[in-house]
Amino acid sequence: MNEPFSQAERQALYRVMELRRDIRHFSSEPIPTEILERILEAAHIAPSVGFMQPWNFILISSLQIRQSIKTLFEETNRAELAKITEQERKELYRSLKLEGILEAPLNIAVTCDRERDAPFVLGRGAMPEMDLFSTCLAIENLWLAARAEGIGIGWVSLFDRPSLEKLLELPPNVRLVAYLCAGYPLEFRAKPLLEEVGWKNRLNLANLVYHDKWGEISPLFGNEKNHPSL
Amino acid sequence: MNEPFSQAERQALYRVMELRRDIRHFSSEPIPTEILERILEAAHIAPSVGFMQPWNFILISSLQIRQSIKTLFEETNRAELAKITEQERKELYRSLKLEGILEAPLNIAVTCDRERDAPFVLGRGAMPEMDLFSTCLAIENLWLAARAEGIGIGWVSLFDRPSLEKLLELPPNVRLVAYLCAGYPLEFRAKPLLEEVGWKNRLNLANLVYHDKWGEISPLFGNEKNHPSL
Repeated sequence: MNEPFSQAERQALYRVMELRRDIRHFSSEPIPTEILERILEAAHIAPSVGFMQPWNFILISSLQIRQSIKTLFEETNRAELAKITEQERKELYRSLKLEGILEAPLNIAVTCDRERDAPFVLGRGAMPEMDLFSTCLAIENLWLAARAEGIGIGWVSLFDRPSLEKLLELPPNVRLVAYLCAGYPLEFRAKPLLEEVGWKNRLNLANLVYHDKWGEISPLFGNEKNHPSL
Repeated sequence: MNEPFSQAERQALYRVMELRRDIRHFSSEPIPTEILERILEAAHIAPSVGFMQPWNFILISSLQIRQSIKTLFEETNRAELAKITEQERKELYRSLKLEGILEAPLNIAVTCDRERDAPFVLGRGAMPEMDLFSTCLAIENLWLAARAEGIGIGWVSLFDRPSLEKLLELPPNVRLVAYLCAGYPLEFRAKPLLEEVGWKNRLNLANLVYHDKWGEISPLFGNEKNHPSL
Protein backbone atom coordinates (compact mmCIF):
# COMPACT_ATOMS: atom_id res chain seq x y z
CA MET A 1 0.00 0.00 0.00
CA ASN A 2 2.88 2.30 0.80
CA GLU A 3 5.06 1.65 -2.27
CA PRO A 4 6.08 4.62 -4.45
CA PHE A 5 3.60 5.98 -6.95
CA SER A 6 4.02 4.88 -10.54
CA GLN A 7 4.39 7.24 -13.46
CA ALA A 8 0.80 6.34 -14.46
CA GLU A 9 -0.51 7.23 -11.00
CA ARG A 10 1.29 10.58 -11.01
CA GLN A 11 -0.10 11.33 -14.45
CA ALA A 12 -3.60 10.50 -13.23
CA LEU A 13 -3.24 12.97 -10.38
CA TYR A 14 -1.93 15.73 -12.64
CA ARG A 15 -4.64 15.08 -15.22
CA VAL A 16 -7.35 15.46 -12.56
CA MET A 17 -5.80 18.75 -11.45
CA GLU A 18 -5.48 20.04 -15.01
CA LEU A 19 -9.05 19.20 -15.99
CA ARG A 20 -10.74 20.42 -12.79
CA ARG A 21 -13.05 23.36 -13.51
CA ASP A 22 -15.42 25.69 -11.70
CA ILE A 23 -18.80 24.60 -13.08
CA ARG A 24 -21.93 26.73 -13.44
CA HIS A 25 -23.95 24.73 -16.00
CA PHE A 26 -25.36 21.47 -14.64
CA SER A 27 -27.55 18.61 -15.76
CA SER A 28 -30.28 17.73 -13.27
CA GLU A 29 -29.17 14.08 -13.09
CA PRO A 30 -28.70 13.16 -9.42
CA ILE A 31 -25.30 12.19 -8.00
CA PRO A 32 -25.30 8.47 -7.07
CA THR A 33 -24.98 7.97 -3.32
CA GLU A 34 -21.81 5.89 -3.54
CA ILE A 35 -20.10 8.63 -5.57
CA LEU A 36 -21.21 11.31 -3.12
CA GLU A 37 -19.82 9.21 -0.29
CA ARG A 38 -16.44 8.81 -2.00
CA ILE A 39 -16.23 12.55 -2.61
CA LEU A 40 -16.99 13.38 1.01
CA GLU A 41 -14.56 10.71 2.24
CA ALA A 42 -11.88 12.37 0.11
CA ALA A 43 -12.61 15.70 1.81
CA HIS A 44 -12.53 14.08 5.23
CA ILE A 45 -9.02 12.65 4.80
CA ALA A 46 -7.55 16.10 4.10
CA PRO A 47 -4.92 17.47 6.48
CA SER A 48 -6.09 19.62 9.39
CA VAL A 49 -4.31 21.60 12.06
CA GLY A 50 -3.87 19.45 15.20
CA PHE A 51 -5.98 16.76 13.44
CA MET A 52 -8.90 19.05 14.28
CA GLN A 53 -11.12 17.98 11.34
CA PRO A 54 -13.17 21.14 11.91
CA TRP A 55 -15.46 20.63 8.92
CA ASN A 56 -19.12 19.73 8.43
CA PHE A 57 -20.93 19.20 5.14
CA ILE A 58 -24.54 20.30 4.74
CA LEU A 59 -26.12 18.61 1.72
CA ILE A 60 -28.84 20.92 0.47
CA SER A 61 -31.46 19.44 -1.81
CA SER A 62 -34.59 21.36 -0.73
CA LEU A 63 -35.66 23.58 -3.63
CA GLN A 64 -37.34 25.98 -1.24
CA ILE A 65 -34.15 26.55 0.74
CA ARG A 66 -32.13 26.87 -2.46
CA GLN A 67 -34.56 29.45 -3.78
CA SER A 68 -33.93 31.58 -0.67
CA ILE A 69 -30.19 31.11 -1.13
CA LYS A 70 -30.42 32.12 -4.78
CA THR A 71 -32.18 35.32 -3.70
CA LEU A 72 -29.27 36.09 -1.37
CA PHE A 73 -26.86 35.50 -4.25
CA GLU A 74 -28.80 37.86 -6.53
CA GLU A 75 -28.69 40.68 -3.99
CA THR A 76 -24.92 40.42 -3.62
CA ASN A 77 -24.39 39.96 -7.34
CA ARG A 78 -26.31 43.16 -8.11
CA ALA A 79 -24.19 45.07 -5.62
CA GLU A 80 -21.03 43.67 -7.20
CA LEU A 81 -22.10 44.59 -10.71
CA ALA A 82 -22.67 48.15 -9.56
CA LYS A 83 -19.01 48.38 -8.48
CA ILE A 84 -17.66 47.90 -12.00
CA THR A 85 -17.08 51.27 -13.64
CA GLU A 86 -15.73 50.27 -17.05
CA GLN A 87 -18.63 49.62 -19.44
CA GLU A 88 -17.06 46.81 -21.47
CA ARG A 89 -16.01 44.99 -18.31
CA LYS A 90 -19.49 45.48 -16.87
CA GLU A 91 -21.09 43.88 -19.93
CA LEU A 92 -18.67 40.96 -19.75
CA TYR A 93 -19.47 40.47 -16.06
CA ARG A 94 -23.19 40.60 -16.77
CA SER A 95 -22.83 37.91 -19.46
CA LEU A 96 -21.24 35.44 -17.06
CA LYS A 97 -23.29 32.78 -15.30
CA LEU A 98 -21.80 32.66 -11.81
CA GLU A 99 -23.78 29.90 -10.07
CA GLY A 100 -25.95 26.84 -10.63
CA ILE A 101 -27.81 26.88 -7.30
CA LEU A 102 -31.17 25.71 -8.64
CA GLU A 103 -30.13 23.62 -11.65
CA ALA A 104 -27.52 21.51 -9.86
CA PRO A 105 -29.09 18.48 -8.19
CA LEU A 106 -27.19 19.18 -4.96
CA ASN A 107 -25.62 22.09 -3.12
CA ILE A 108 -23.04 21.51 -0.40
CA ALA A 109 -22.29 24.05 2.32
CA VAL A 110 -18.90 23.38 3.89
CA THR A 111 -18.54 24.83 7.37
CA CYS A 112 -15.83 25.18 10.01
CA ASP A 113 -16.53 24.63 13.72
CA ARG A 114 -14.17 27.15 15.27
CA GLU A 115 -14.56 25.66 18.74
CA ARG A 116 -14.04 22.00 17.93
CA ASP A 117 -11.45 20.75 20.45
CA ALA A 118 -11.45 24.19 22.12
CA PRO A 119 -9.62 25.63 23.91
CA PHE A 120 -6.35 23.94 22.85
CA VAL A 121 -5.71 22.88 19.27
CA LEU A 122 -2.16 21.78 18.52
CA GLY A 123 -0.56 24.20 16.06
CA ARG A 124 -3.35 26.76 16.06
CA GLY A 125 -2.40 29.00 18.98
CA ALA A 126 -0.56 31.65 17.00
CA MET A 127 -2.68 31.41 13.83
CA PRO A 128 -6.36 30.99 14.77
CA GLU A 129 -7.36 30.96 11.11
CA MET A 130 -5.65 27.59 10.64
CA ASP A 131 -9.03 25.88 11.12
CA LEU A 132 -10.52 27.80 8.18
CA PHE A 133 -7.44 26.99 6.11
CA SER A 134 -7.76 23.29 6.98
CA THR A 135 -11.36 23.36 5.81
CA CYS A 136 -10.15 24.74 2.47
CA LEU A 137 -7.72 21.83 2.10
CA ALA A 138 -10.70 19.49 2.50
CA ILE A 139 -12.61 21.44 -0.14
CA GLU A 140 -9.80 20.99 -2.66
CA ASN A 141 -9.78 17.25 -1.98
CA LEU A 142 -13.55 17.21 -2.51
CA TRP A 143 -13.21 19.17 -5.75
CA LEU A 144 -10.52 16.88 -7.18
CA ALA A 145 -12.38 13.72 -6.18
CA ALA A 146 -15.53 15.09 -7.78
CA ARG A 147 -13.65 15.80 -11.02
CA ALA A 148 -12.27 12.27 -11.11
CA GLU A 149 -15.83 10.95 -10.67
CA GLY A 150 -17.11 13.15 -13.52
CA ILE A 151 -18.91 15.49 -11.10
CA GLY A 152 -18.59 19.26 -11.47
CA ILE A 153 -18.24 21.65 -8.55
CA GLY A 154 -18.89 25.40 -8.59
CA TRP A 155 -17.88 27.55 -5.61
CA VAL A 156 -20.31 30.44 -5.11
CA SER A 157 -18.87 33.19 -2.94
CA LEU A 158 -21.22 36.07 -3.75
CA PHE A 159 -23.19 36.03 -0.52
CA ASP A 160 -23.66 38.16 2.52
CA ARG A 161 -22.17 35.49 4.77
CA PRO A 162 -24.11 36.25 7.98
CA SER A 163 -27.41 36.04 6.08
CA LEU A 164 -26.52 32.69 4.56
CA GLU A 165 -25.29 31.37 7.91
CA LYS A 166 -28.59 32.36 9.51
CA LEU A 167 -30.57 30.68 6.75
CA LEU A 168 -28.62 27.43 7.28
CA GLU A 169 -29.12 27.79 11.05
CA LEU A 170 -25.40 27.58 11.84
CA PRO A 171 -24.59 27.90 15.56
CA PRO A 172 -22.51 30.96 16.55
CA ASN A 173 -19.26 28.97 16.74
CA VAL A 174 -19.64 27.62 13.20
CA ARG A 175 -18.91 29.61 10.08
CA LEU A 176 -19.56 29.04 6.44
CA VAL A 177 -16.38 28.52 4.41
CA ALA A 178 -17.76 27.47 1.02
CA TYR A 179 -21.06 27.16 -0.77
CA LEU A 180 -20.71 24.60 -3.55
CA CYS A 181 -23.01 23.57 -6.39
CA ALA A 182 -22.49 19.92 -7.35
CA GLY A 183 -23.68 17.72 -10.19
CA TYR A 184 -22.90 16.40 -13.65
CA PRO A 185 -21.78 19.37 -15.76
CA LEU A 186 -23.02 20.06 -19.27
CA GLU A 187 -19.32 20.03 -20.14
CA PHE A 188 -15.84 20.32 -18.68
CA ARG A 189 -14.25 23.05 -20.77
CA ALA A 190 -10.63 22.92 -21.86
CA LYS A 191 -9.72 26.15 -20.03
CA PRO A 192 -11.03 28.06 -17.03
CA LEU A 193 -14.04 30.09 -18.13
CA LEU A 194 -12.59 33.41 -16.98
CA GLU A 195 -9.50 32.73 -19.08
CA GLU A 196 -11.57 31.66 -22.08
CA VAL A 197 -13.75 34.78 -22.09
CA GLY A 198 -10.79 37.09 -21.61
CA TRP A 199 -11.56 38.20 -18.06
CA LYS A 200 -8.03 37.36 -16.92
CA ASN A 201 -5.04 35.38 -18.16
CA ARG A 202 -3.08 32.62 -16.48
CA LEU A 203 -0.04 34.19 -14.79
CA ASN A 204 3.46 32.98 -15.58
CA LEU A 205 4.44 30.78 -12.64
CA ALA A 206 8.13 31.62 -13.02
CA ASN A 207 7.33 35.20 -12.02
CA LEU A 208 5.66 34.04 -8.83
CA VAL A 209 8.55 32.04 -7.42
CA TYR A 210 11.12 33.77 -5.23
CA HIS A 211 14.20 32.67 -3.38
CA ASP A 212 14.92 33.04 0.36
CA LYS A 213 12.90 36.25 0.62
CA TRP A 214 10.28 38.29 -1.20
CA GLY A 215 11.29 39.62 -4.62
CA GLU A 216 14.43 37.55 -5.26
CA ILE A 217 14.10 35.46 -8.43
CA SER A 218 14.82 31.82 -7.65
CA PRO A 219 17.80 29.96 -9.13
CA LEU A 220 16.10 26.74 -8.00
CA PHE A 221 13.13 27.17 -10.30
CA GLY A 222 13.13 27.47 -14.07
CA ASN A 223 15.65 29.88 -15.57
CA GLU A 224 15.89 33.31 -17.09
CA LYS A 225 14.03 32.46 -20.26
CA ASN A 226 11.04 31.76 -18.05
CA HIS A 227 11.10 35.29 -16.70
CA PRO A 228 9.90 37.37 -19.65
CA SER A 229 8.92 40.27 -17.44
CA LEU A 230 12.51 40.86 -16.31
CA MET B 1 -7.59 14.58 -23.06
CA ASN B 2 -11.08 15.24 -21.75
CA GLU B 3 -12.40 11.66 -21.64
CA PRO B 4 -13.76 10.29 -18.35
CA PHE B 5 -11.31 9.10 -15.74
CA SER B 6 -10.75 5.37 -15.52
CA GLN B 7 -11.18 3.33 -12.37
CA ALA B 8 -7.37 3.10 -12.15
CA GLU B 9 -7.01 6.87 -12.35
CA ARG B 10 -9.60 7.41 -9.62
CA GLN B 11 -7.84 4.86 -7.45
CA ALA B 12 -4.53 6.64 -8.00
CA LEU B 13 -6.05 9.93 -6.82
CA TYR B 14 -7.62 8.35 -3.75
CA ARG B 15 -4.40 6.51 -2.90
CA VAL B 16 -2.44 9.79 -3.00
CA MET B 17 -4.97 11.41 -0.68
CA GLU B 18 -4.96 8.44 1.72
CA LEU B 19 -1.18 8.24 1.95
CA ARG B 20 -0.52 11.99 2.23
CA ARG B 21 1.05 12.83 5.60
CA ASP B 22 2.32 15.85 7.51
CA ILE B 23 6.06 15.15 7.64
CA ARG B 24 8.51 16.30 10.28
CA HIS B 25 11.43 13.89 9.75
CA PHE B 26 13.39 14.52 6.57
CA SER B 27 16.44 13.20 4.77
CA SER B 28 18.79 15.93 3.57
CA GLU B 29 18.67 14.67 -0.04
CA PRO B 30 17.78 17.62 -2.28
CA ILE B 31 14.58 17.72 -4.32
CA PRO B 32 15.38 17.42 -8.05
CA THR B 33 14.52 20.63 -9.91
CA GLU B 34 12.10 18.94 -12.31
CA ILE B 35 10.13 17.47 -9.40
CA LEU B 36 10.03 20.83 -7.63
CA GLU B 37 8.73 22.40 -10.83
CA ARG B 38 5.97 19.82 -11.21
CA ILE B 39 4.89 20.34 -7.61
CA LEU B 40 4.72 24.12 -8.02
CA GLU B 41 2.89 23.77 -11.35
CA ALA B 42 0.30 21.63 -9.56
CA ALA B 43 -0.18 24.39 -6.99
CA HIS B 44 -0.47 27.01 -9.71
CA ILE B 45 -3.35 25.24 -11.52
CA ALA B 46 -5.51 25.26 -8.40
CA PRO B 47 -8.81 27.15 -8.47
CA SER B 48 -8.80 30.77 -7.35
CA VAL B 49 -11.51 33.35 -6.83
CA GLY B 50 -11.94 35.41 -10.00
CA PHE B 51 -8.89 33.58 -11.45
CA MET B 52 -6.91 35.82 -9.09
CA GLN B 53 -3.97 33.41 -8.62
CA PRO B 54 -2.99 35.43 -5.55
CA TRP B 55 -0.14 33.15 -4.51
CA ASN B 56 3.65 33.40 -4.49
CA PHE B 57 6.12 30.72 -3.45
CA ILE B 58 9.32 31.65 -1.65
CA LEU B 59 11.82 28.78 -1.81
CA ILE B 60 14.01 29.07 1.26
CA SER B 61 17.30 27.24 1.23
CA SER B 62 19.56 29.63 3.18
CA LEU B 63 20.52 27.94 6.44
CA GLN B 64 21.03 31.31 8.09
CA ILE B 65 17.50 32.45 7.32
CA ARG B 66 16.09 29.09 8.36
CA GLN B 67 17.95 29.32 11.66
CA SER B 68 16.22 32.65 12.37
CA ILE B 69 12.89 31.09 11.42
CA LYS B 70 13.53 28.12 13.70
CA THR B 71 14.15 30.55 16.56
CA LEU B 72 10.75 32.15 15.89
CA PHE B 73 9.16 28.69 15.94
CA GLU B 74 10.79 27.85 19.25
CA GLU B 75 9.47 31.00 20.92
CA THR B 76 5.90 30.26 19.84
CA ASN B 77 6.20 26.58 20.66
CA ARG B 78 7.34 27.36 24.22
CA ALA B 79 4.35 29.66 24.70
CA GLU B 80 2.01 26.95 23.40
CA LEU B 81 3.45 24.30 25.70
CA ALA B 82 2.83 26.59 28.66
CA LYS B 83 -0.88 26.67 27.81
CA ILE B 84 -1.37 22.93 28.38
CA THR B 85 -2.50 22.31 31.93
CA GLU B 86 -2.87 18.52 32.01
CA GLN B 87 0.49 16.90 32.79
CA GLU B 88 0.13 13.77 30.65
CA ARG B 89 -0.98 15.83 27.67
CA LYS B 90 1.93 18.22 28.24
CA GLU B 91 4.42 15.36 28.16
CA LEU B 92 2.87 13.99 24.99
CA TYR B 93 3.06 17.44 23.35
CA ARG B 94 6.69 17.81 24.42
CA SER B 95 7.55 14.44 22.87
CA LEU B 96 6.26 15.46 19.45
CA LYS B 97 8.56 16.79 16.76
CA LEU B 98 6.55 19.56 15.12
CA GLU B 99 8.83 20.81 12.35
CA GLY B 100 11.80 19.98 10.15
CA ILE B 101 12.91 23.51 9.32
CA LEU B 102 16.65 22.83 9.36
CA GLU B 103 16.77 19.15 8.33
CA ALA B 104 14.53 19.47 5.27
CA PRO B 105 16.51 20.48 2.18
CA LEU B 106 13.95 23.15 1.33
CA ASN B 107 11.34 25.31 3.03
CA ILE B 108 8.53 26.93 1.04
CA ALA B 109 6.66 29.99 2.24
CA VAL B 110 3.32 30.32 0.45
CA THR B 111 1.95 33.84 0.46
CA CYS B 112 -1.19 35.66 -0.67
CA ASP B 113 -1.08 39.05 -2.37
CA ARG B 114 -4.28 40.62 -1.07
CA GLU B 115 -4.14 43.44 -3.62
CA ARG B 116 -3.51 41.43 -6.77
CA ASP B 117 -6.10 42.66 -9.30
CA ALA B 118 -7.33 45.25 -6.76
CA PRO B 119 -9.76 46.83 -6.42
CA PHE B 120 -12.21 44.48 -8.18
CA VAL B 121 -11.88 40.72 -7.99
CA LEU B 122 -14.80 38.74 -9.38
CA GLY B 123 -16.50 36.80 -6.58
CA ARG B 124 -14.53 38.33 -3.72
CA GLY B 125 -16.55 41.43 -2.89
CA ALA B 126 -18.64 39.94 -0.11
CA MET B 127 -16.01 37.54 1.20
CA PRO B 128 -12.59 39.24 1.15
CA GLU B 129 -10.96 36.15 2.66
CA MET B 130 -11.58 34.24 -0.58
CA ASP B 131 -8.02 35.06 -1.69
CA LEU B 132 -6.58 33.37 1.39
CA PHE B 133 -8.88 30.40 0.83
CA SER B 134 -7.75 30.16 -2.81
CA THR B 135 -4.16 30.06 -1.66
CA CYS B 136 -5.04 27.11 0.59
CA LEU B 137 -6.50 25.23 -2.39
CA ALA B 138 -3.14 25.68 -4.13
CA ILE B 139 -1.36 24.37 -1.04
CA GLU B 140 -3.43 21.17 -1.06
CA ASN B 141 -2.58 20.65 -4.74
CA LEU B 142 1.09 21.17 -3.87
CA TRP B 143 0.85 18.71 -0.98
CA LEU B 144 -0.81 15.97 -3.06
CA ALA B 145 1.59 16.42 -5.97
CA ALA B 146 4.52 16.23 -3.56
CA ARG B 147 3.17 12.97 -2.09
CA ALA B 148 2.81 11.45 -5.54
CA GLU B 149 6.44 12.40 -6.23
CA GLY B 150 7.59 10.81 -2.97
CA ILE B 151 8.22 14.21 -1.36
CA GLY B 152 7.01 14.93 2.17
CA ILE B 153 5.49 18.24 3.22
CA GLY B 154 5.12 19.52 6.78
CA TRP B 155 3.03 22.64 7.48
CA VAL B 156 4.47 24.61 10.40
CA SER B 157 1.97 27.06 11.87
CA LEU B 158 3.58 27.82 15.23
CA PHE B 159 4.86 31.28 14.38
CA ASP B 160 4.16 34.85 15.33
CA ARG B 161 3.04 35.68 11.81
CA PRO B 162 4.07 39.36 11.69
CA SER B 163 7.61 38.45 12.82
CA LEU B 164 7.94 35.80 10.12
CA GLU B 165 6.50 38.13 7.48
CA LYS B 166 9.06 40.76 8.44
CA LEU B 167 11.89 38.26 8.26
CA LEU B 168 10.82 37.24 4.73
CA GLU B 169 10.49 40.94 3.78
CA LEU B 170 6.89 40.59 2.63
CA PRO B 171 5.33 43.88 1.46
CA PRO B 172 2.37 45.17 3.52
CA ASN B 173 -0.21 43.86 1.02
CA VAL B 174 1.18 40.31 1.12
CA ARG B 175 0.53 37.89 3.92
CA LEU B 176 1.97 34.55 4.83
CA VAL B 177 -0.52 31.70 4.50
CA ALA B 178 1.70 28.64 5.00
CA TYR B 179 5.23 27.79 5.97
CA LEU B 180 6.10 24.37 4.57
CA CYS B 181 9.08 22.08 5.08
CA ALA B 182 9.74 19.94 2.00
CA GLY B 183 11.98 16.98 1.23
CA TYR B 184 12.23 13.21 1.12
CA PRO B 185 10.77 11.90 4.38
CA LEU B 186 12.41 9.23 6.52
CA GLU B 187 9.09 7.44 6.11
CA PHE B 188 5.45 7.93 5.20
CA ARG B 189 3.61 6.43 8.17
CA ALA B 190 0.42 4.42 7.76
CA LYS B 191 -1.64 6.83 9.89
CA PRO B 192 -1.45 10.52 10.80
CA LEU B 193 1.05 10.93 13.62
CA LEU B 194 -1.43 12.63 15.97
CA GLU B 195 -3.78 9.66 15.53
CA GLU B 196 -0.98 7.15 16.01
CA VAL B 197 0.27 8.66 19.27
CA GLY B 198 -3.24 9.02 20.67
CA TRP B 199 -3.46 12.81 20.56
CA LYS B 200 -6.79 12.66 18.73
CA ASN B 201 -8.86 10.12 16.79
CA ARG B 202 -10.32 10.30 13.31
CA LEU B 203 -13.91 11.53 13.55
CA ASN B 204 -16.76 9.51 12.06
CA LEU B 205 -17.64 11.27 8.83
CA ALA B 206 -21.29 10.20 9.02
CA ASN B 207 -21.67 12.40 12.09
CA LEU B 208 -20.37 15.42 10.20
CA VAL B 209 -22.83 15.34 7.31
CA TYR B 210 -26.13 17.18 7.64
CA HIS B 211 -29.11 17.71 5.39
CA ASP B 212 -30.58 21.06 4.25
CA LYS B 213 -29.57 22.82 7.47
CA TRP B 214 -27.30 22.47 10.47
CA GLY B 215 -27.96 19.48 12.74
CA GLU B 216 -30.26 17.42 10.51
CA ILE B 217 -28.80 13.98 9.77
CA SER B 218 -28.67 13.37 6.05
CA PRO B 219 -30.71 10.66 4.33
CA LEU B 220 -28.46 11.16 1.29
CA PHE B 221 -25.34 9.98 3.04
CA GLY B 222 -24.71 6.61 4.68
CA ASN B 223 -27.43 5.26 6.94
CA GLU B 224 -28.27 4.86 10.58
CA LYS B 225 -25.66 2.22 11.26
CA ASN B 226 -23.09 4.86 10.38
CA HIS B 227 -24.38 7.12 13.13
CA PRO B 228 -23.26 5.35 16.29
CA SER B 229 -23.56 8.50 18.36
CA LEU B 230 -27.31 8.72 17.78
